[in-house]
Amino acid sequence: MMKIRVLHGPNLNLLGVREPDVYGSVTLEEINSRIKAHAKTIGVRVEISQSNSEGELVDAIQEAGEQAEALVINPGAYTHYSIALRDAISSVKIPTVEVHLSNIYAREEFRRESVTAPVCAGQISGFGVTSYLLGLEAAKSLIEGRAKK
Amino acid sequence: MMKIRVLHGPNLNLLGVREPDVYGSVTLEEINSRIKAHAKTIGVRVEISQSNSEGELVDAIQEAGEQAEALVINPGAYTHYSIALRDAISSVKIPTVEVHLSNIYAREEFRRESVTAPVCAGQISGFGVTSYLLGLEAAKSLIEGRAKK
Amino acid sequence: MMKIRVLHGPNLNLLGVREPDVYGSVTLEEINSRIKAHAKTIGVRVEISQSNSEGELVDAIQEAGEQAEALVINPGAYTHYSIALRDAISSVKIPTVEVHLSNIYAREEFRRESVTAPVCAGQISGFGVTSYLLGLEAAKSLIEGRAKK
Amino acid sequence: MMKIRVLHGPNLNLLGVREPDVYGSVTLEEINSRIKAHAKTIGVRVEISQSNSEGELVDAIQEAGEQAEALVINPGAYTHYSIALRDAISSVKIPTVEVHLSNIYAREEFRRESVTAPVCAGQISGFGVTSYLLGLEAAKSLIEGRAKK
Amino acid sequence: MMKIRVLHGPNLNLLGVREPDVYGSVTLEEINSRIKAHAKTIGVRVEISQSNSEGELVDAIQEAGEQAEALVINPGAYTHYSIALRDAISSVKIPTVEVHLSNIYAREEFRRESVTAPVCAGQISGFGVTSYLLGLEAAKSLIEGRAKK
Amino acid sequence: MMKIRVLHGPNLNLLGVREPDVYGSVTLEEINSRIKAHAKTIGVRVEISQSNSEGELVDAIQEAGEQAEALVINPGAYTHYSIALRDAISSVKIPTVEVHLSNIYAREEFRRESVTAPVCAGQISGFGVTSYLLGLEAAKSLIEGRAKK
Amino acid sequence: MMKIRVLHGPNLNLLGVREPDVYGSVTLEEINSRIKAHAKTIGVRVEISQSNSEGELVDAIQEAGEQAEALVINPGAYTHYSIALRDAISSVKIPTVEVHLSNIYAREEFRRESVTAPVCAGQISGFGVTSYLLGLEAAKSLIEGRAKK
Amino acid sequence: MMKIRVLHGPNLNLLGVREPDVYGSVTLEEINSRIKAHAKTIGVRVEISQSNSEGELVDAIQEAGEQAEALVINPGAYTHYSIALRDAISSVKIPTVEVHLSNIYAREEFRRESVTAPVCAGQISGFGVTSYLLGLEAAKSLIEGRAKK
Amino acid sequence: MMKIRVLHGPNLNLLGVREPDVYGSVTLEEINSRIKAHAKTIGVRVEISQSNSEGELVDAIQEAGEQAEALVINPGAYTHYSIALRDAISSVKIPTVEVHLSNIYAREEFRRESVTAPVCAGQISGFGVTSYLLGLEAAKSLIEGRAKK
Amino acid sequence: MMKIRVLHGPNLNLLGVREPDVYGSVTLEEINSRIKAHAKTIGVRVEISQSNSEGELVDAIQEAGEQAEALVINPGAYTHYSIALRDAISSVKIPTVEVHLSNIYAREEFRRESVTAPVCAGQISGFGVTSYLLGLEAAKSLIEGRAKK
Amino acid sequence: MMKIRVLHGPNLNLLGVREPDVYGSVTLEEINSRIKAHAKTIGVRVEISQSNSEGELVDAIQEAGEQAEALVINPGAYTHYSIALRDAISSVKIPTVEVHLSNIYAREEFRRESVTAPVCAGQISGFGVTSYLLGLEAAKSLIEGRAKK
Amino acid sequence: MMKIRVLHGPNLNLLGVREPDVYGSVTLEEINSRIKAHAKTIGVRVEISQSNSEGELVDAIQEAGEQAEALVINPGAYTHYSIALRDAISSVKIPTVEVHLSNIYAREEFRRESVTAPVCAGQISGFGVTSYLLGLEAAKSLIEGRAKK
Repeated sequence: MMKIRVLHGPNLNLLGVREPDVYGSVTLEEINSRIKAHAKTIGVRVEISQSNSEGELVDAIQEAGEQAEALVINPGAYTHYSIALRDAISSVKIPTVEVHLSNIYAREEFRRESVTAPVCAGQISGFGVTSYLLGLEAAKSLIEGRAKK
Repeated sequence: MMKIRVLHGPNLNLLGVREPDVYGSVTLEEINSRIKAHAKTIGVRVEISQSNSEGELVDAIQEAGEQAEALVINPGAYTHYSIALRDAISSVKIPTVEVHLSNIYAREEFRRESVTAPVCAGQISGFGVTSYLLGLEAAKSLIEGRAKK
Repeated sequence: MMKIRVLHGPNLNLLGVREPDVYGSVTLEEINSRIKAHAKTIGVRVEISQSNSEGELVDAIQEAGEQAEALVINPGAYTHYSIALRDAISSVKIPTVEVHLSNIYAREEFRRESVTAPVCAGQISGFGVTSYLLGLEAAKSLIEGRAKK
Repeated sequence: MMKIRVLHGPNLNLLGVREPDVYGSVTLEEINSRIKAHAKTIGVRVEISQSNSEGELVDAIQEAGEQAEALVINPGAYTHYSIALRDAISSVKIPTVEVHLSNIYAREEFRRESVTAPVCAGQISGFGVTSYLLGLEAAKSLIEGRAKK
Repeated sequence: MMKIRVLHGPNLNLLGVREPDVYGSVTLEEINSRIKAHAKTIGVRVEISQSNSEGELVDAIQEAGEQAEALVINPGAYTHYSIALRDAISSVKIPTVEVHLSNIYAREEFRRESVTAPVCAGQISGFGVTSYLLGLEAAKSLIEGRAKK
Repeated sequence: MMKIRVLHGPNLNLLGVREPDVYGSVTLEEINSRIKAHAKTIGVRVEISQSNSEGELVDAIQEAGEQAEALVINPGAYTHYSIALRDAISSVKIPTVEVHLSNIYAREEFRRESVTAPVCAGQISGFGVTSYLLGLEAAKSLIEGRAKK
Repeated sequence: MMKIRVLHGPNLNLLGVREPDVYGSVTLEEINSRIKAHAKTIGVRVEISQSNSEGELVDAIQEAGEQAEALVINPGAYTHYSIALRDAISSVKIPTVEVHLSNIYAREEFRRESVTAPVCAGQISGFGVTSYLLGLEAAKSLIEGRAKK
Repeated sequence: MMKIRVLHGPNLNLLGVREPDVYGSVTLEEINSRIKAHAKTIGVRVEISQSNSEGELVDAIQEAGEQAEALVINPGAYTHYSIALRDAISSVKIPTVEVHLSNIYAREEFRRESVTAPVCAGQISGFGVTSYLLGLEAAKSLIEGRAKK
Repeated sequence: MMKIRVLHGPNLNLLGVREPDVYGSVTLEEINSRIKAHAKTIGVRVEISQSNSEGELVDAIQEAGEQAEALVINPGAYTHYSIALRDAISSVKIPTVEVHLSNIYAREEFRRESVTAPVCAGQISGFGVTSYLLGLEAAKSLIEGRAKK
Repeated sequence: MMKIRVLHGPNLNLLGVREPDVYGSVTLEEINSRIKAHAKTIGVRVEISQSNSEGELVDAIQEAGEQAEALVINPGAYTHYSIALRDAISSVKIPTVEVHLSNIYAREEFRRESVTAPVCAGQISGFGVTSYLLGLEAAKSLIEGRAKK
Repeated sequence: MMKIRVLHGPNLNLLGVREPDVYGSVTLEEINSRIKAHAKTIGVRVEISQSNSEGELVDAIQEAGEQAEALVINPGAYTHYSIALRDAISSVKIPTVEVHLSNIYAREEFRRESVTAPVCAGQISGFGVTSYLLGLEAAKSLIEGRAKK
Repeated sequence: MMKIRVLHGPNLNLLGVREPDVYGSVTLEEINSRIKAHAKTIGVRVEISQSNSEGELVDAIQEAGEQAEALVINPGAYTHYSIALRDAISSVKIPTVEVHLSNIYAREEFRRESVTAPVCAGQISGFGVTSYLLGLEAAKSLIEGRAKK
């Protein structure tokens, strides 16, 4: 069974608490449950973790490059300035899908710039938890070579 | 059965012919077949059309606002400058999903700016035909209120 | 009796429906009635049309240059990027008045730039339907040579 | 009878003398006569003054907020940098109409930026003295609630 | 005999009328006669058309890709913002020559930017009608493989 | 017989050697032969020289102003920053045609800016050696008053 | 007893009236009472004034340089463009504390730039009336050499 | 007794050693002593820590949101680019005061931009250790609802 | 005898006191003595005044336009943003010479921009008091038509 | 024997694996061997480490300031945005040499900006492993006072 | 007798011929005569030369540093981009006065930037030949220490 | 024995004289002696020259391409704008090392941009004369294929 790594970036552990008008009231735990349920439905294995630290996320991406076949990542605030994450993503050989809960185009100017997206296979943003679920499907499709990378 | 409008923007009628290293070798006809097949699978009706004309696309979006429950649109080149399309999308009351075959973040600088995305529910880019299929699912999810709008 | 052409740009056919908090709840039909009534009051003839298509608006401006003595235009979204409309306006020999329902200075950054205004006689924005009525008076005044062009 | 305050900004006292190819040969006195005549025609009272001083104009705007029902202002050069005027306008509770003799869009780059317009109800520019007369009508319309604010 | 498509963009139908100090007093009809005469001289066939509509120009470029061996285009105002035209040009497999009557470098700032030129073989601007005639020769040369593409 | 000066700017003496994928494999000597042959064909005299020095090129342009009826110049790298060349060109009274072997619009960002083009009659770029030959024709046409300058 | 000058810039005389959602409902008179009370508490003398005029504020700063040991100033709108105030502040030899009622970082883009702050000892913004009270303490601390200047 | 968390960002552990002409010669230990003494004076409890790691600071801010009633933070270098810190601050529900030892407006251009300040209640900069002490008072005032948030 | 008006802008009354390392230790009184002595030497009459107020300077420029044959002005800080002064200078019909004590090119970035210089005959900066004396000579020369205006 | 600290930034642990066309196929282990060998040759002691974490690198730089006489650092992606690293480097009193494997000037635009270089003694980039070896020599030279700091 | 070097930059040898509406109809020879006459009047020796070559001007500035006590230079087009001239001027120990015939502030945008002025003592522009004569006086004054450097 | 060309750009002949606080007090002659001594040590031949002229430097680079196996160049001021030098460097087939005495990152903004570095193998800056010596080693290493190009 193919294995997909799911990574949550900084402050996503506060979901449901943090600015619910922007991010909704679902907690990270609930999101992870939905991700696992959907993974089962589409027949993939997932491993999920969250970190507030840029360095730990770089470590995790490198590890995913060794242990998984695809990566689904919500880099949170690091999306907008972490060239270290970008380099980690472009260093590993597995395809990466960037996901965002909110529509980054509809928020502050500085959130429209993604320094990580150019080295990902693609990006999905704006659909709340559904962004992650579609991200899993995109990742599966990339592994199977059905989606264009 | 819920109805979703799918709109292809300028030059997408040349797919399979135009720059296959960027857009792949699948023709628009084949894409439409896959969209229709997937629609059937997930239980929605689709109506699909393509136009090279900004004005006709505005007309089509307005029409979709009357006749469909959601819109999936690949605005092509208009993504980057058509405020008229943006206004049309924000005028209609149904949710809109913006999709792109290629990863617009990984191309020329001017393709990273989307003037239409801020008024869409969300955006999916970079997965080839799969972008459209995920777009359909996102649209369905938005109609059902499962995805965050 | 002097003749003035009135042109409505893209998405103005949705007035009353589209974002009523920005554009008010009056429909285009009602606006046209008020324009015609005011034209009668100040003693001018008007011909009014709307189009979502940039090319058709260029055609209409060129036609106005042949058949009318002044032009009152709300270029809608095209205000902000249509150099084609700008060139059409500067090509015809009749004076042009640019009007806007909302105050374009009080909205998104990109709406403050008007590429058409530099080649118009002047601009009136922010007064709802009254913008059109004042536009008619300005146009009349320009034809009579009372206003400075 | 409703009362409207009319304010002329810096250097407008030189009208008719200053750069007649840009501003025409009418003097400020003549403009004021035409404003008063038009006010009588449309049934409003006007009080008119001019100042070269930013501080005095702020004072006058604050005073207008106490004594009049609307303000028609040509901020002259201050249009382009006086945040103090902008704050004065947004502080008073009466609607403000910004007017300009020349088409500010057709002049030097720095004259296209108006820092005061975003807090006015609307702007009228390019019609010479007629700009003021239309400004009076717009102001009257705003007081009567006919124009959209 | 090799066939070359010649396309005129928006407002070029007004040539001779529109701003003669910038574009000269020759009408489009006269230009077309000179193009046809020159085509005969250098031994190529030409098919010429004009449109004010971006969508129709995209259609025409796509058609030229099927029916001609080279394209000579004056995109008019669309030169400066139509990514749709750019995509159409880069989609067709025949070489394209961009021509302009006036020297676009000697005009307004925004006319110096050409979004279509990067995907053309080359650009000729500033020589009035002669720009088109040199464009024909360049196109012929490109077809014959004599000019560098 | 009319006389046209042809000037090659810096590093063009390395043609055929330097980056053949950008500039082709033809040497400067061969280009000069083709220019001379074409000059004979169209009935003009040419004098050709090359220099790597900005000052010498300024001298040569000034000299051309005395001794020739038109100038065809490929300013090479100086195109992008030499205001001294620009001033020399605008100082002499003969028409100047700027030519480039490669399409400057399709290269690095800084090569799209030409500081000399605004004071030339026009510009031809992208057609390899043919750019020079068309430049000769344009120059001849300018001398004869057939081309618009 | 040490003496501290307190200066209020343009439109602050409207406090309590002007945009209460931004500036609160306390009037300038009440603020001055609280400043005086706090001055008494911490053992300093204050002299307070307000002006809408840039020139008068420059005069007042120069005067403070003669008569007081420190300056606490809220330059209001002049914060963002008055180089004259900046020069006055850097001309006088006493330390200056810039204060703001609202958090200037959380407002319009143009309010984040302070041209006066670089020549002040420091800046306090965002705490309503408390900003002034902390400003007094900072000024006292600067006079006593306890705070770093 | 109300509890306030105090956080020092990267390199502040080197205070007294690092660039004493900019930051003074007081060590972090001495600063902490003064903070604790002042806290006692004004009747609040403080908990103080320092970290060079962005991730640890995010963790600490989240923790403060659980355990304290206000936060006083000197984000050091992270002030200028850490959107992760910004998001952490805006996620927690307690008011935050940003403090700086030096006047960030009087230093390098890039230090004038604060990405964290817009989501804080306010900012105090330029008064050395006194910035922290005033920060405590501001925080206390915010908790008591006396300062405007 | 020809009459020349000399105007000193804001904060120049502090000369000799204010930042002596930038502006020298000469007082305004001493400068005025040297100006008057030099005027006598070269045979012109001068009238000198200083103001911190933008409005008063506009008044003074307008008055100079009535009463003098040339204007020598050091607009101080207003050099960099006062479009009102610029308009006053371009409104009066006498030639204006802009002078500066310090070399504005060798100071802060924002001091290199002069909004008044484009409408003056010329500018002299960097020579201390000598800038004024040369300014008088330039003004005299302009009146006599010897200098190019 | 003098001691030099060598620090590798994020993702350099993937060397030989990551984008070998940009960074070559040598592994970090092999690089470290060559650094140690070269250190022996030129008679210095080295201590080498790598981290993906910004905070850990700040810690390591501070530690180097205590334990070594010079620092050679390849900050990797942090080169382009980590002001925290910059502050750490400028805080320690030993000279720092910045090195890069690839020529940062020949890559993406954002890699040309180094926020750390301005506080280093100098920078060496583009020579692969040799960059480190030259960096050691530069560091030795700086310690000996032979190179200019 | 003190010696002053006068240097004319590129294209100034064409004066009187080149764009007389901008630069007047006086030839360089006539200007030099007036400079020499004025030098005699004020009691200084001058040596004058002109060059179109940046390298020769650098040589001449270095030579002036050896042989003269001050330099008066009109760097022509090089004013706007020659950092080599700037470095030469800042390398020599004699004071330099930059002069311009026309008002560089009143011309094209790119002529307002002077890269040489920041390292000169001061700048005089806009007074035609008189600019040079005032430049001589300024230079003399600088040598005598009367003007502020 | 391998031969390396060393080129010094403009104003470097003034070393030891020019701004010793920036460039040190070593003369060019002394630098050349150290370069020659080091060349002997590492077993390479060097040929060294200096020029103030951009054209001569282009000539010298082209010559080096014929006669040497590598180039070490300090382009001085031309580093920042000479696209002609850049083109010369990219035209020759030998590897080039750019060196600078001072750390260009730690100086004026405009000195941080190098237009020549992108076409060099690498860059070494900030180590005084040692920059040249390391440059020789880098060049040797590039010739031997040990350094990555």
